[in-house]
Amino acid sequence: MGKRILIVGGVAGGASAAARLRRLDELAEIIMFERGPHVSFSNCALPFHLSGIVKNSEDLILMTPEKFKKQHNIEVRVNSEVVRIKRDEKKIVVRNLSTGEEYEERYDKLILAPGARPVLPKSIEGLDRPNVFTLRNVVDVARIKNYIESNKINDITVVGGGYVGIEVTENLRIAGYNVSLIEAMDQVMAPFDYDMAQILHKELYDNGVNLILNDSVVKIFDDSVELKSGRKIKSGAVIMAVGVRPETKLAEEAGLEIGETGGIKVDANYRTSDRDIYAVGDAIEIYNCINRKPTILALAEPAQMQARAAADHIYNIPHSNKGVIGSSVVRVFSLNAACTGINEKTAKACGIPYDFVYIIPNDKVSLMPNCNPLHLKLIYEYPTGKILGAQAIGKGAADKRIDVIAAMIRMGATLEDLKELELSYSPLYNTAKDPVNIAALVGLNLLHGRFRQVPVTKVRELVESGAYIIDVREKDEYEKGHLKNAVNIPLSVLRNRIDEVPKDRPVYVHCRSGQRSYYAVMALQGRGFENVYNISGSFLGICCYEYYMDQVTGRERIVTDYNFK
Amino acid sequence: MGKRILIVGGVAGGASAAARLRRLDELAEIIMFERGPHVSFSNCALPFHLSGIVKNSEDLILMTPEKFKKQHNIEVRVNSEVVRIKRDEKKIVVRNLSTGEEYEERYDKLILAPGARPVLPKSIEGLDRPNVFTLRNVVDVARIKNYIESNKINDITVVGGGYVGIEVTENLRIAGYNVSLIEAMDQVMAPFDYDMAQILHKELYDNGVNLILNDSVVKIFDDSVELKSGRKIKSGAVIMAVGVRPETKLAEEAGLEIGETGGIKVDANYRTSDRDIYAVGDAIEIYNCINRKPTILALAEPAQMQARAAADHIYNIPHSNKGVIGSSVVRVFSLNAACTGINEKTAKACGIPYDFVYIIPNDKVSLMPNCNPLHLKLIYEYPTGKILGAQAIGKGAADKRIDVIAAMIRMGATLEDLKELELSYSPLYNTAKDPVNIAALVGLNLLHGRFRQVPVTKVRELVESGAYIIDVREKDEYEKGHLKNAVNIPLSVLRNRIDEVPKDRPVYVHCRSGQRSYYAVMALQGRGFENVYNISGSFLGICCYEYYMDQVTGRERIVTDYNFK
Repeated sequence: MGKRILIVGGVAGGASAAARLRRLDELAEIIMFERGPHVSFSNCALPFHLSGIVKNSEDLILMTPEKFKKQHNIEVRVNSEVVRIKRDEKKIVVRNLSTGEEYEERYDKLILAPGARPVLPKSIEGLDRPNVFTLRNVVDVARIKNYIESNKINDITVVGGGYVGIEVTENLRIAGYNVSLIEAMDQVMAPFDYDMAQILHKELYDNGVNLILNDSVVKIFDDSVELKSGRKIKSGAVIMAVGVRPETKLAEEAGLEIGETGGIKVDANYRTSDRDIYAVGDAIEIYNCINRKPTILALAEPAQMQARAAADHIYNIPHSNKGVIGSSVVRVFSLNAACTGINEKTAKACGIPYDFVYIIPNDKVSLMPNCNPLHLKLIYEYPTGKILGAQAIGKGAADKRIDVIAAMIRMGATLEDLKELELSYSPLYNTAKDPVNIAALVGLNLLHGRFRQVPVTKVRELVESGAYIIDVREKDEYEKGHLKNAVNIPLSVLRNRIDEVPKDRPVYVHCRSGQRSYYAVMALQGRGFENVYNISGSFLGICCYEYYMDQVTGRERIVTDYNFK
Repeated sequence: MGKRILIVGGVAGGASAAARLRRLDELAEIIMFERGPHVSFSNCALPFHLSGIVKNSEDLILMTPEKFKKQHNIEVRVNSEVVRIKRDEKKIVVRNLSTGEEYEERYDKLILAPGARPVLPKSIEGLDRPNVFTLRNVVDVARIKNYIESNKINDITVVGGGYVGIEVTENLRIAGYNVSLIEAMDQVMAPFDYDMAQILHKELYDNGVNLILNDSVVKIFDDSVELKSGRKIKSGAVIMAVGVRPETKLAEEAGLEIGETGGIKVDANYRTSDRDIYAVGDAIEIYNCINRKPTILALAEPAQMQARAAADHIYNIPHSNKGVIGSSVVRVFSLNAACTGINEKTAKACGIPYDFVYIIPNDKVSLMPNCNPLHLKLIYEYPTGKILGAQAIGKGAADKRIDVIAAMIRMGATLEDLKELELSYSPLYNTAKDPVNIAALVGLNLLHGRFRQVPVTKVRELVESGAYIIDVREKDEYEKGHLKNAVNIPLSVLRNRIDEVPKDRPVYVHCRSGQRSYYAVMALQGRGFENVYNISGSFLGICCYEYYMDQVTGRERIVTDYNFK
């Protein structure tokens, strides 16, 4: 007789574990229990049904119980909730949700992959209304689509600007709905820093999303929601995407150890505090190898890898747990936004000494079709130069740059390594020095004190305090839009007009994207100016950073005209 | 007085060195000499003028001598050939090509960046005809375009199927010309292995290129070329793109050491055998850190990095020479084809023990628009699992996968590292396990002997010898096209029909892309079959591998119908 392995949960983690177990042991008895009606659906593709990119909700289902049986000889029981683990008897209690009947099943090994459940803040009144939804599975997304279509809803509120909230917003907007996106923090997409998030805010705003930051829903009505600020928003349906919390009830009740972050505690091989029970996926606490802290990470790829590792461990196949770094990507209308590792906020919060680079190079040779600026922020440890994280946003392959940096982070790379990285180059794909190489070069210059910089986030303060700012772009560029009190001394005449530059006060330099201003900074330093700063991100970065807040607050602008090119 | 630094050659290497030197030393005297009329043009973008993607040839010029002067205070002398180095006097002799006048210039440091020149095989008759061209600079590409347009040429021969040959072919084809591409080897694009090159051959063929392999031009006429095989090809113009050779004349005559590969020999800091003379770019011999051999690499990115390193060394800024791995990418009509590290051929030639994985996963979640197969070949050292190289071809982001693997190779990664690599995931960009993760997983299974495989290159032999091959796809898939003697036992019924499978002979299994056949192999092994092989690449790979040769040789097919989906 083979082993009897039971699996709780049939989506990313559970289904991956089951398939791997079968490959390792043709004779094991494998049974997978899923509370919902479907297993092995593509959670990450759920939002795309709302726009019709995925036409039928059934298409989201990758494997049926029948297919599991036929292809893998794995038994799948849907509508079956595991309600209790009797650890001393090595049994689980299963409730058949169709009949209400409960029964027991014996296990040799048990794998928990229950996932996470959407957070529903108790402070909100009206969460039980029929026009309030969460999005966790195929049934949910079909319900939402059906509700808004059959009730002819035009105005929809999405609560929460994380991955799910953004994807739901985008897909509803593509489908033509008026969407209000309410986020309690001062930015969407927490894995990005505030400066990078402004680029996303602009994109949401430009695509007609009613983005509301620093506010939250307090009451939901049939045709509106009321916000903490007192504002009322027209809204026929509400989709709650505030976040998720590990589904730990079953584990907790069984006395399994829970970690400080609220996830099920596991060892290096995803084994819980019970030797015969493993746990994988969104429900567990894992280890972030960059900031060295326990964390929860509700992502599909780590879930699948954990599932495989747990299955392997059951069959004595070694697996080295390297911790997680957390890489992710989201499309926001015309932009690709990806990030990996830790951001500035996290580095600060964890007390990790760091510095960062923010550059906006072209994503390919400018002669080529579809050449666009790529916003790239690279965070590294000071003084080691070890790469800690990166964020990239642009119409081009932001995901490629982030994946390359993720690989470098994984392997413990420094700026020096990234500088030397030889990537494939052709004018259609990148520049001879790829943006990631450029970021490393700038980082090394900073690390070695070859020049200093100020971030775009400080420019308003500089302008308002009357700092001496040189715009080294050519006159025609300056005239199309410039910082209100910047002096225009083009790089091409800087050396001739060097006497105009004051020696007794700090000099801040910018151009369009930061390259010419870097040349200018080096030239000024080489000619005895000691207090010179490059404005990282330059005019392009300043415009992107200021634009959205200018629009919504109507505050006085620091630029005569925006220029995003 | 600052240093006096002279630079020979004003394109990728020379221009990069000049700009970096200026940043490091505002007071240095920097003079750059260029034989041609232009400096700092985009070599890699030259072919794109032929299709009109780059409209005006002047757009290819990134910097003029005037701009170098104004922006960087660097003196540029074009039409100026450096004809001699007087090392003992630390002087160069320059010939003004406009006036014929010669003069001398003194240097403290000299940087040689003369590039490479196109190879013109002496065996070809008629190379001096006015309809024969090479493509090295802006003047060349303008001449070609002008010649074929003003002489109303319709039929063009491109000689050599390397990067330049392929890009020229593609751009001429886009512009509507009939193009014959003649390659002396049995495949185009030598950095790819023969199996991967078949995919490119198919794409060239499908796009109407008259691709001729294993043949070469022996004589060029006004309206045709004659091949070694005796074939005559209609052709009004010939573009020679056989390859390039380091431009070493100046260095050789100055008595500088030349390496075994024919490139100028340099030390770890790109210094030649003369302490005051550096050399960078296509003209030098560098070190391949994977096969540990000296090599020549005519690529823009390494040239730029070498230039920077040389400039840094002049100013005592340390640089660690990590050797090169050689990453590159080319577009071939609808396909992106990228590679990094060494291929199977090189591993074999260098006696490096290796094994490889060839998989064809989807490049994103199949529900998403523009989901396509990605052909990915990963070569690793046996038994260490250290990654040696990779090749990727597909309509999707092949370049991304290769750049990620390039990063891993650079950092000395093994299959185990690549398996665990956490990349950004969303259904629009990839699959939860990215193709590179899948390649690593398959590689680890092979490395640990969990299953065995045969490559697509061996399938014809298997079919012809009457081997027992199981096609585990469903019946409807089988009926649309299958291997001529394959037995169809779908994975979904394999366990029920297991008695049909012979135990006394080798069993070869394939499906569409290799996933289901892997499941089948594991199931068979788990049920006592000992002699089972997965056909890597499966039916999709077999079709791609066989198609082009079937078309051109008219040989008997081994499949009833091709299926490339």
